[in-house]
Amino acid sequence: MKKVNVAIMGFGTVGTGVYKVLEKEKKNIEEKEGISLNIAKVYSRHFHYNIPDILKVYSVDDISEDPDIDIVIETIGGIEPTKDLVLQCLNSGKTVVTANKKMIAMYWPELEEAAKKTGAGLYFEASVGAGIPILRTIDDSLQANTISSVEAIINGTTNYILTKMYLEGRDYDDVLREAQELGYAEADPSADVDGYDAMYKLAILASKAFHTRIPIDRIYMEGISGIKKKDIQFASDFGYVIKLLAIARKNGKKIELRVHPAMISKQHPLANVLDSYNAILLNGNAIGDIMVYGRGAGDFPTASAVLSDVVYAAQKTKHKYASFKNNMGELSEELEFNTNWQNPFYIRLDLLERPGVLSKVTKIMGDHNISLNLVMQKGLKKEAATIVFLTYPSNEKDVQAAIQELKLSEVVKKVSAVIRIIED
Amino acid sequence: MKKVNVAIMGFGTVGTGVYKVLEKEKKNIEEKEGISLNIAKVYSRHFHYNIPDILKVYSVDDISEDPDIDIVIETIGGIEPTKDLVLQCLNSGKTVVTANKKMIAMYWPELEEAAKKTGAGLYFEASVGAGIPILRTIDDSLQANTISSVEAIINGTTNYILTKMYLEGRDYDDVLREAQELGYAEADPSADVDGYDAMYKLAILASKAFHTRIPIDRIYMEGISGIKKKDIQFASDFGYVIKLLAIARKNGKKIELRVHPAMISKQHPLANVLDSYNAILLNGNAIGDIMVYGRGAGDFPTASAVLSDVVYAAQKTKHKYASFKNNMGELSEELEFNTNWQNPFYIRLDLLERPGVLSKVTKIMGDHNISLNLVMQKGLKKEAATIVFLTYPSNEKDVQAAIQELKLSEVVKKVSAVIRIIED
Repeated sequence: MKKVNVAIMGFGTVGTGVYKVLEKEKKNIEEKEGISLNIAKVYSRHFHYNIPDILKVYSVDDISEDPDIDIVIETIGGIEPTKDLVLQCLNSGKTVVTANKKMIAMYWPELEEAAKKTGAGLYFEASVGAGIPILRTIDDSLQANTISSVEAIINGTTNYILTKMYLEGRDYDDVLREAQELGYAEADPSADVDGYDAMYKLAILASKAFHTRIPIDRIYMEGISGIKKKDIQFASDFGYVIKLLAIARKNGKKIELRVHPAMISKQHPLANVLDSYNAILLNGNAIGDIMVYGRGAGDFPTASAVLSDVVYAAQKTKHKYASFKNNMGELSEELEFNTNWQNPFYIRLDLLERPGVLSKVTKIMGDHNISLNLVMQKGLKKEAATIVFLTYPSNEKDVQAAIQELKLSEVVKKVSAVIRIIED
Repeated sequence: MKKVNVAIMGFGTVGTGVYKVLEKEKKNIEEKEGISLNIAKVYSRHFHYNIPDILKVYSVDDISEDPDIDIVIETIGGIEPTKDLVLQCLNSGKTVVTANKKMIAMYWPELEEAAKKTGAGLYFEASVGAGIPILRTIDDSLQANTISSVEAIINGTTNYILTKMYLEGRDYDDVLREAQELGYAEADPSADVDGYDAMYKLAILASKAFHTRIPIDRIYMEGISGIKKKDIQFASDFGYVIKLLAIARKNGKKIELRVHPAMISKQHPLANVLDSYNAILLNGNAIGDIMVYGRGAGDFPTASAVLSDVVYAAQKTKHKYASFKNNMGELSEELEFNTNWQNPFYIRLDLLERPGVLSKVTKIMGDHNISLNLVMQKGLKKEAATIVFLTYPSNEKDVQAAIQELKLSEVVKKVSAVIRIIED
């Protein structure tokens, strides 16, 4: 049986998860795959989980310079010093398996170039959706498809918060606090709730799906901290739920990339993705819609994907590289980044209670080519106060221009919510 | 660039679908995969879709004896003469890619033995869920998991019928007739509505998931033709939808295998799988729940999976074989096929309108260890007439024994429905 020596670099939650899962499944992997995975070294500064002393190393040199190590699992996270340590291993010809979304989203071309030079592999299934095998699916199951769209729930924390707000009718701040207490959200929740985490993952996903390097600075990003209980309730009345969606679309040269809260129909395949679950919905020209759903975080799901990469890499005689036309991060001149998306909008306004305000507001909408599908005033004695609009599909720029004008209008107290509606 | 010569055997809907998708995606596959797929020969008795004459062959010998052909795509379907033609190709060392669920479910060991002898590959992703990449996911993404359960909607026709009955409040016969007119159901619908199609697919799925050869005769099968509009309505009132589920569970030596209609919660990940869509939900010990969703039928989705297998096979330097311990179809002595499943039940009875009947009926239930969670009489003036029970988790054998006794009871006019409830 082929024996493969593996080193783990970083021994926090994910690193120990990998260690534990491999201990449990080692024999099964040998039986099913004909490969014996042997954890030869573990690099960390501190060891909070007990492993044999002989495995412990305190310098990455002990790994990169060890000719017996075949594959290095990086579970340190972050960019500094992780990226340099990964480069050190790739330069020594070690195949690297990582769950590090930020590093891959930002430095994939540089890392891949290093890997190519020594013939090492670079694998990162766990970087998007933890255990969910979405990158492998694109690579190895959709080869005969041109993928035109990606719609994904790829941040577990925000999906947990939005699910609780929806099912329990609670406020954002209240649920966030609970999520922090339970350890589902960080003390500084910005990386999740402002959309950074989803943005990194979308950059990786879209690059794979469109076979074109997508830099993160081309992705529009808007978080969920402005979502009110009231809007979730209105959405539900209209047959929608609100989710933080990561969306990428490609049509010929035109690409659109965005992370923002969106209303989707309760019958949409993503609507039943609850709590901290993730799901990625793709559309390919041959396969049609396909969705992969699972736990988007957690030590064991992440370990599942990491070890899947390890087994997969160990069975390769030659590693494949993405080899995008614009691999080194320069944008191909052929791509057009479209930010003037088209979709219906949900708009909630607080208006002065005065005759004629509705006509003033709807005139502004009309002046900006926005057609109204539904206008709703709720619980009012006179005209106005709070009013909700659902628009027909409208251009982003038209809507933003209308919003600017609405904000300046003397009859508008506040533009309380502007949420995009993503249709099936 | 590596050139791979491919032959298509059988040129009906799926065969022509493969041809069309490859024509469209050939260049993309070359760019992304570095492989040039060349359709060298097409075997059929009749050619309803126009292709160059030079490609047409009328004998499989022209394919099996052609040393330039690398991969044969089988899209004839059925067992006779297909299985012999596939064996002929495998014996000549041709890798075979097939969408033929019945052939694989029944003769996988024999076909794999033939493939092994010549070093040919045998691939059949399209045999389960058409384009949905579930077999590749098990093979290449869940290597570090012991899979304990499979719950799947893998028959599009029955899911279409049940969806229409649910959403439009229509009768089974009515919807079936419409499905037949639209071409979604066959003139003889038995293969779909009685569960055979799902049974073949479950045999393949469970074999892969449990790494153990599952013969079809060990799968319990019950179709949807007995499902009434009334039961779908009751289910909905209780928060359930009815789906035809294919279920496989393994716990140590114990295996259970069943295809039957089941009530699942409206929040269950499979509940929003509508129309002819399919989805497979797996549970692995590391990854937790994972679901893959997509079109379970159709020429292009099937072609997507077939061509994915072709590219995948072409990139392999050495083909892998399942190599189950009980590969040749003999059951390992270690397996115990459990048919005494445990789950809650929905039971609807028509009773005589007479005092004391409820007590007689509930006594029979109690005598068979069945605890009642909910008893509902609807729209009745006196005691009884129609009554619905939801039980706590009960053993299959106890319930079947109780049903036998109920049928013989003088107060029971009819046991109108017995539907298992599958909890999340």
